[in-house]
Amino acid sequence: MIRKLLAEFIGTAFLLIGVVGSGIMAESLAGDNIALALLANAIATGCILYAIITTLGPVSGAHFNPAVTLAFAIRREHDVSDVLPYVVVQIAGGIIGVWACHLMFDLPILQLSNTDRTGVNQWASEIIATFGLLLVIFGGIKHRPDAVPPLVGLYITGAYWFTSSTSFANPAVTIARGFSDTFAGINPAHISMFILTQIVGVGVAAIVLPILFPKN
Amino acid sequence: MIRKLLAEFIGTAFLLIGVVGSGIMAESLAGDNIALALLANAIATGCILYAIITTLGPVSGAHFNPAVTLAFAIRREHDVSDVLPYVVVQIAGGIIGVWACHLMFDLPILQLSNTDRTGVNQWASEIIATFGLLLVIFGGIKHRPDAVPPLVGLYITGAYWFTSSTSFANPAVTIARGFSDTFAGINPAHISMFILTQIVGVGVAAIVLPILFPKN
Amino acid sequence: MIRKLLAEFIGTAFLLIGVVGSGIMAESLAGDNIALALLANAIATGCILYAIITTLGPVSGAHFNPAVTLAFAIRREHDVSDVLPYVVVQIAGGIIGVWACHLMFDLPILQLSNTDRTGVNQWASEIIATFGLLLVIFGGIKHRPDAVPPLVGLYITGAYWFTSSTSFANPAVTIARGFSDTFAGINPAHISMFILTQIVGVGVAAIVLPILFPKN
Amino acid sequence: MIRKLLAEFIGTAFLLIGVVGSGIMAESLAGDNIALALLANAIATGCILYAIITTLGPVSGAHFNPAVTLAFAIRREHDVSDVLPYVVVQIAGGIIGVWACHLMFDLPILQLSNTDRTGVNQWASEIIATFGLLLVIFGGIKHRPDAVPPLVGLYITGAYWFTSSTSFANPAVTIARGFSDTFAGINPAHISMFILTQIVGVGVAAIVLPILFPKN
Repeated sequence: MIRKLLAEFIGTAFLLIGVVGSGIMAESLAGDNIALALLANAIATGCILYAIITTLGPVSGAHFNPAVTLAFAIRREHDVSDVLPYVVVQIAGGIIGVWACHLMFDLPILQLSNTDRTGVNQWASEIIATFGLLLVIFGGIKHRPDAVPPLVGLYITGAYWFTSSTSFANPAVTIARGFSDTFAGINPAHISMFILTQIVGVGVAAIVLPILFPKN
Repeated sequence: MIRKLLAEFIGTAFLLIGVVGSGIMAESLAGDNIALALLANAIATGCILYAIITTLGPVSGAHFNPAVTLAFAIRREHDVSDVLPYVVVQIAGGIIGVWACHLMFDLPILQLSNTDRTGVNQWASEIIATFGLLLVIFGGIKHRPDAVPPLVGLYITGAYWFTSSTSFANPAVTIARGFSDTFAGINPAHISMFILTQIVGVGVAAIVLPILFPKN
Repeated sequence: MIRKLLAEFIGTAFLLIGVVGSGIMAESLAGDNIALALLANAIATGCILYAIITTLGPVSGAHFNPAVTLAFAIRREHDVSDVLPYVVVQIAGGIIGVWACHLMFDLPILQLSNTDRTGVNQWASEIIATFGLLLVIFGGIKHRPDAVPPLVGLYITGAYWFTSSTSFANPAVTIARGFSDTFAGINPAHISMFILTQIVGVGVAAIVLPILFPKN
Repeated sequence: MIRKLLAEFIGTAFLLIGVVGSGIMAESLAGDNIALALLANAIATGCILYAIITTLGPVSGAHFNPAVTLAFAIRREHDVSDVLPYVVVQIAGGIIGVWACHLMFDLPILQLSNTDRTGVNQWASEIIATFGLLLVIFGGIKHRPDAVPPLVGLYITGAYWFTSSTSFANPAVTIARGFSDTFAGINPAHISMFILTQIVGVGVAAIVLPILFPKN
């Protein structure tokens, strides 16, 4: 179990390094060209997702995401007693990853974001983004388990662009991004609604996915 | 059959979310830089195609495209009586996907496009684009079935750039894009010629592909 | 044999559609932003290479390139009497692909390029580019035949950027690009030195690769 | 052994051609748009890494990196007596690759970089970048050996963006880049600290990775 938690910790830390670090670099280089910054941000995030899911998946399942851990628990494919430890190390790893970015880019370690991300349209985005993420994960596991790393990486690279929230779809990532007043940040006041709508996405997936992908 | 139709519905909805949503985001961020907007649009579309074909292919065949369903029927690999239900849910899913984009990006739900897409050059593009799509699908199915998702995803990402129409190559997508006055839209008056030329592409493929890829 | 020649013809036509068509679109949208145009051009070319090599490789070997056909013949893996027919249809397919682009983008069908591509630095680029292409093809065939399509696609996407000639590395492509006065064109007066240096690259490969990849 | 050293030499030369050549092309075309230049640089580097690791991995292990050779030696998976020859040809190949770029882009062959790359933030980046590189290599080898080429290629493409140093993570690459006063260069005075922190990254990996990926 320690090995699994270590994998979730390191993986989520690298996920946040990918998301937040590339956001800092992209904004610093691209300036006003936000489209280019988002493209680099989306590509770098897809790359690191592919890398950590491939290498750590066989160790811990490579959730790196409380919404995914919850979805596995609902399907009785993750021990309920193991949900809390997973979620705790995911959040801790995510925050450490954000702080590592601040160290690497010579920024104050402790920050809180001022970037507003709120409104019905963004909440709808998080429901759809989270549902889509679980669609590709559980469809992939059923039909092409070896393809789960590119599935998640490419889905998220695309979803940066086709949702108005840029697809957080991950409560640990959402919390950790509250700690960075940079390109990828989110005002802490807006975190709870993002997490709530992500959980709604898990609920929708729990209803629809068993129809699409019945257990063998 | 319900499961197959649900898969076609959800898949085509996500395809349109990918195409139209990323177009809205790209245009909103990139402004006058249309090349950058199209690059993001093309990459996001390729990503979502890879994701939905991998995960839903084993459920419904992952057509998401009446031209593909028609081509399978001509090859006697799709029941003729199942063509109409497939096409209906593909069109319905596509329109729902477009409306989901408008919800996510805080736009009026009901729209009709004003973007002109017409002329012999664009019609020639749709014939070539549809023929090429069927070439990679049927070549992939024959020789490397596991590679069909990246084949279609990468082919379309490229085809956005090497045809003047940006390669709709899909009647359901064409109809649904008529309902969005955004980056990816098409003036409803120009839809019928796009669909007609896509069907011509199916016809060319029906003649050429059996020579290239004879049945085993 | 007819089937193989048809595959080489269609594949080379689509290769040129990918190279020249995406160049026309990219230049038209990106204007002065040549870096962005080249990025779209390089990505679209990699996409179509992956698609045509995967689907047509099992039919004809998917050379689409007289330099590759020559290299196979030198290794006695392609019948010497089949070299000429392959080369003829590759060149014909390439020119047809260029003309299809002009049709799709509403340009005069018959053109000759005015883009100068000459000088020792570009010739050195073509030697290195062609050697590298044969390195990945023959290394891939020996160790990971299923990976040849992404190998060639990604190698060429990269090689657009790391050679000063943008890596033609293909006599049929070089000749066909002489017929298009657009982004990807080459002044016909400069074609012969490109082809000559590509053949030098084949020669270097013929010496080095048997050491790296001895026959089983 | 000669065959292995030849593979390391050619591979590292092509790696530097990818890194330095695409940097020269990107800077020359993108001008002030450094974000776009870095994106092209990162994509081209990922492409060539995928190509050379796939094709040369079965020959020499495809290290192309003294830090990787050292990490294998620490795990007793590379003969200690073979470390020095590997490192020598990696450095020699890297420098030859840089000079080949200068030839291809019509620049003076002999150069020394003036680009400052120093400071605690960049050193922290190199520790994290090197640790992450070894994480994906050794995790990949244990769980998905066939996926090592895309793992390394995509990890580095992402790491260009999520570290402030753009992730050299390779002493041979670091030394070779000292010889080019172009986009990818590094002031020779700053090389030793980069290499030192890369070795620290190897040390961290030597402690952590055996916990995550115990030997079978």
